[in-house]
Amino acid sequence: MKVLVINSGSSSLKYQLFDMKDESVLAKGIIEEIGTEQAIHRQECTPPLPPQTGLRILEHKEAITHMLAALTDPGSGSIASVREIAAVGHRIAHGGEFFSDAALVDDEVLQAVRRNIELAPLHNPANLKGIESFRQLLGEETPMVCVFDTAFHQTMPQESYMYPLPRVLYDRHKIRRYGFHGTSHKYVSVRLGEITGHPLQGTRVISCHIGNGASITAIRDGKSVDTSMGMTPLEGLMMGTRCGDIDPAIIPFVMAKENLSLGEINSLLNKHSGLAGISGQGSDLREIIRCADEGHEGARLALNMYVQRIRKYIGSYCAVLNGLDTLVFTGGVGENSDYIRAKVCESLSYLGLELDPELNRSRSPGERKISTPASRVAVHIIPTNEELMIARDTQRLIQQRAASAAVHQSVPL
Amino acid sequence: MKVLVINSGSSSLKYQLFDMKDESVLAKGIIEEIGTEQAIHRQECTPPLPPQTGLRILEHKEAITHMLAALTDPGSGSIASVREIAAVGHRIAHGGEFFSDAALVDDEVLQAVRRNIELAPLHNPANLKGIESFRQLLGEETPMVCVFDTAFHQTMPQESYMYPLPRVLYDRHKIRRYGFHGTSHKYVSVRLGEITGHPLQGTRVISCHIGNGASITAIRDGKSVDTSMGMTPLEGLMMGTRCGDIDPAIIPFVMAKENLSLGEINSLLNKHSGLAGISGQGSDLREIIRCADEGHEGARLALNMYVQRIRKYIGSYCAVLNGLDTLVFTGGVGENSDYIRAKVCESLSYLGLELDPELNRSRSPGERKISTPASRVAVHIIPTNEELMIARDTQRLIQQRAASAAVHQSVPL
Repeated sequence: MKVLVINSGSSSLKYQLFDMKDESVLAKGIIEEIGTEQAIHRQECTPPLPPQTGLRILEHKEAITHMLAALTDPGSGSIASVREIAAVGHRIAHGGEFFSDAALVDDEVLQAVRRNIELAPLHNPANLKGIESFRQLLGEETPMVCVFDTAFHQTMPQESYMYPLPRVLYDRHKIRRYGFHGTSHKYVSVRLGEITGHPLQGTRVISCHIGNGASITAIRDGKSVDTSMGMTPLEGLMMGTRCGDIDPAIIPFVMAKENLSLGEINSLLNKHSGLAGISGQGSDLREIIRCADEGHEGARLALNMYVQRIRKYIGSYCAVLNGLDTLVFTGGVGENSDYIRAKVCESLSYLGLELDPELNRSRSPGERKISTPASRVAVHIIPTNEELMIARDTQRLIQQRAASAAVHQSVPL
Repeated sequence: MKVLVINSGSSSLKYQLFDMKDESVLAKGIIEEIGTEQAIHRQECTPPLPPQTGLRILEHKEAITHMLAALTDPGSGSIASVREIAAVGHRIAHGGEFFSDAALVDDEVLQAVRRNIELAPLHNPANLKGIESFRQLLGEETPMVCVFDTAFHQTMPQESYMYPLPRVLYDRHKIRRYGFHGTSHKYVSVRLGEITGHPLQGTRVISCHIGNGASITAIRDGKSVDTSMGMTPLEGLMMGTRCGDIDPAIIPFVMAKENLSLGEINSLLNKHSGLAGISGQGSDLREIIRCADEGHEGARLALNMYVQRIRKYIGSYCAVLNGLDTLVFTGGVGENSDYIRAKVCESLSYLGLELDPELNRSRSPGERKISTPASRVAVHIIPTNEELMIARDTQRLIQQRAASAAVHQSVPL
């Protein structure tokens, strides 16, 4: 079965085509600057193709048409016809309380995704555009699946997801913790089970997805029980340009002092804070580590705050889980920065956690354990693969539907 | 030396007169409803006096005059003349970055307290009124000391006190974590050293001040290294009516949805959230525990959230301290609720923390250790005494000044 995975953003379209027989990637690419006459299509393939630039791609449907043409290109394409695409899996930012698992696209599901637009006003509309364009281009016979970034966290108990606010705000506006990066946290916890060969039942895992956005999840028995991102992806850790946790009273204080509108304060908290706000050296962690090494004061402070806040969440989730069996690092920073991993683990020796400095520093890519044999907490690096998780979820739902249809057909009339 | 301790609020005046010879309380009381003709004066004394009601006390100076008259009353007073008051110690809410210790009142100190009004617009002005009234009534010859609720936390490292916001907000408005309940956290950590007979150097202590307001502090070597309250007392734990930590993005979201002003959102977060907001049964924890026992759903949820958030801060500060030697409970709830203490400690057994259920339940008041002998973390109840801490700080500064004056006098001219 060939599954196409789509991440449709406001001005970009990412795609990956999987052959689920061996989970190999047949094609992969991104179309950027949608909505302009300067759109760019970058395809990752061997041998590499140069990016196509200056494309006139004014909206998502055009981008998808362009992508499908590339996929089926007689020379460089990886499939002969779009009919080879057995299903399309769409990454959807916000599933609200409606979705605790992926869902086959139908009118009801689309309606529910639409109802969550107010919780993810930037992402869900772009995700929906992707689905609608595919429907128009491929018709109803190509099944599609929505995979929600929030779904994995729907197992959180009420005391984790409710905010200590007037109850009416939950009843009226569904203000609660949803959590994000769910597909990634789910992927690494599933992979952890596969790697170790142990069932997740009875295990306490903390998964650190640390990239430009970052979140940490407490996972008991393979299920999310708490996570650092909240109603929106702003809460929790210090991120590239997002502040994460702050005193809520700061917001009205700053709005009054600086005479900011709601849009302006949102922009300040989401786009001008975090590593960038403190370091004054942008939001790229590698650059900040470099500057800190050279003695830049702001970069050094940003780095210390960043590490401290990761440590605090790990410590906090140890209390939620009453201990810890495995700590997993994933995401761009989590997978690649031995510096951050070492710094974070430095103050976790009280857990009996012992990082092997050699294994941590090793540049070998891929999955690996980086704790010592004696460590009471296993530490793993598991490169995340949200696209594969979406493809797997998509395949699973398609197969379930087929199985259920077969059962219905076998019932004698 | 007799030291009078004053907590001057916006419409109330609390006082305690200490004889520092043996730290005994000579007199204690509160005047409430200042600014009305229905003010009330409650004196705590043996034999008890009935409260004086219907008093015409229109401002703080009148309240202080009334209090001093009561203290020197030939019948029920505890001193013969106000001249017996060697010094007055004032509780000041916000010392900003100016004060890392208590300070003798002079014009410069008053100016600095005034400059912090914008950080504590409700509290510092009332505190100042108390100082100014005393100056007018007793003159300059009675020395006065300001004891700041924030001072103990001034030892926090930069990575604990800075928020991941644009740096300019710190430079321009001094937006940072200050922390509160400092006098209480300091008192219990000092008492802990006295009780155990061990120096605080080399120890890792977490102090939980849990009352209607609540904060938790990580203390290393007797010094605050992190604390849950922030720029204001709104951040951190779930409290009686304060929300504590929430996704910052919720604030502009709610302001837009409910069309709230800055004053209204402040009021929502500070006065209508926390235990009250979730339980719908008010903010009194005893009442909420009772309702939860009777199966009230909102009360049960409020309780679970309340406990969970205390646990998470303790866990988080274990990571900050890289382990934990002693956990201290103080404040109304911390001292009196064996239920909360038991629930909090339930998920901390991974630290090797073992509560003795009998000792925890025991109704014996006062200081006591409630962990088992085998517990790897000692758990203590230490009733807080902020007034005594203020009196001690006041005495210390007066004596230091006297010593320094003696040195200066002995220098030959």
